[in-house]
Amino acid sequence: MAELITIEDPDDPRLHDYTGLTDVELRRRREPAEGLFIAEGEKVIRRARSAGYETRSMLLTAKWVDVMRDVIDELPAPVYVVTPDLAEQVTGYHVHRGALASLRRKPLPTADELLATTRRVVIMESVNDHTNIGAIFRSAAALGMDAVLLSPDCADPLYRRSVKVSMGAVFSVPYARLDTWPRGLESVREAGFTLLALTPDERAKTLEETAPHTKERVALMLGAEGSGLTGRALAAADEWVRIPMAHGVDSLNVGAAAAVAFYAVATGRPQS
Amino acid sequence: MAELITIEDPDDPRLHDYTGLTDVELRRRREPAEGLFIAEGEKVIRRARSAGYETRSMLLTAKWVDVMRDVIDELPAPVYVVTPDLAEQVTGYHVHRGALASLRRKPLPTADELLATTRRVVIMESVNDHTNIGAIFRSAAALGMDAVLLSPDCADPLYRRSVKVSMGAVFSVPYARLDTWPRGLESVREAGFTLLALTPDERAKTLEETAPHTKERVALMLGAEGSGLTGRALAAADEWVRIPMAHGVDSLNVGAAAAVAFYAVATGRPQS
Repeated sequence: MAELITIEDPDDPRLHDYTGLTDVELRRRREPAEGLFIAEGEKVIRRARSAGYETRSMLLTAKWVDVMRDVIDELPAPVYVVTPDLAEQVTGYHVHRGALASLRRKPLPTADELLATTRRVVIMESVNDHTNIGAIFRSAAALGMDAVLLSPDCADPLYRRSVKVSMGAVFSVPYARLDTWPRGLESVREAGFTLLALTPDERAKTLEETAPHTKERVALMLGAEGSGLTGRALAAADEWVRIPMAHGVDSLNVGAAAAVAFYAVATGRPQS
Repeated sequence: MAELITIEDPDDPRLHDYTGLTDVELRRRREPAEGLFIAEGEKVIRRARSAGYETRSMLLTAKWVDVMRDVIDELPAPVYVVTPDLAEQVTGYHVHRGALASLRRKPLPTADELLATTRRVVIMESVNDHTNIGAIFRSAAALGMDAVLLSPDCADPLYRRSVKVSMGAVFSVPYARLDTWPRGLESVREAGFTLLALTPDERAKTLEETAPHTKERVALMLGAEGSGLTGRALAAADEWVRIPMAHGVDSLNVGAAAAVAFYAVATGRPQS
């Protein structure tokens, strides 16, 4: 059972994992370097633990101690109990959900490991917005995508905002980083996947035309909001696919486009 | 041509349309009562004007005067030029996009007017989140839905945040409010629409099973994030439809679910 430790000094070094949470640049550097990430709110903390992430510590306001009692009872890590004011002083924001956990990162699988055991894969290029990353993972989980591959410059799926927006789907959908880009896409093709690049380009076929005729193994490539996939990535794809747009509209939000594409890939096969 | 008026006093009454923009409760009451709404950023302001909304005034920082020169040249309304600091003092936030316009609301069409001329309609129940409303309008425009009907308690599509997230789609997709709920749904059915209620309920048919067999005119009903459609709304529908979920995931974000459903309704017809 975890030790409950009341802390009243915002500079207490034991709270180091939780300092400056609103400083995105700082946390982006610190968290991977220190091998940790932050989960926020009861549901997401429970999902992280169910997915096998080890807890380094928890930070709770008093009223969350009862709610998290069962977790605390089996936790081999300290639980810091603080006032809402102190939580805000340490983290830099008002912690609405009253419960934070610092969790230990696990080594990521390699892309090849993931590709060996999956059929439907999402590949993101340069998606840097944490909200979009989280939204794409949430939809990927709900619509049955098996895994995610990230270009080297994609943002961190375990950043607090991504974790929260994904509702914990970043814990359940396995992901890996491609070491080289776009060359790493070769290994995806070699593993038997058809590379479908999602683009608004008029020359692309529609998802509806294409999805039923792809091979069993499909890798769906998505670019960042606004700019989309780069020319290099498009050139490395097997086929270009587009979502038909009504007249005069330039594009869908990348999260909406991803959801539509996942749905089409999941259900657009010929029906028997 | 508009008069360019430099203003240096944050309490100048001519800036009244732009005061306290971050006070959601205040603006929610004031804007409909005063018959105005706020558009932010060059692109969205241009789209509002193309859609026929009259401009009451614009508020620009100096560097945006050149960018908006063509708009200013034909504008029969004052343009207030302010420093970024003064813009922040008046509005309550740092106006990144440097250009705001106050526009006159137009009378909304009635639901019956919209139903007479459309084939694919979105109906939202109790969607109160301005980001979600905006996201749903954006996807509706992109995926070819013709109009939106709102339950009496849905939030305002012309609220600044909704306008921005929609990328101006709230100007191009016509919408109306149903006066009574759920009784107002009767008029939708009487206009020849099949009412499809989107729900995660296991008893619902999948979109893929249902969409190809609906009548020509389809009204797709969506509830709020989290709670979904109420029992009363579900009872008033003709059919329940669901998006098949992968094991263990409770739901999609309402914006993602809406995009998938719009896509299915637009493309899920039997192919000839």
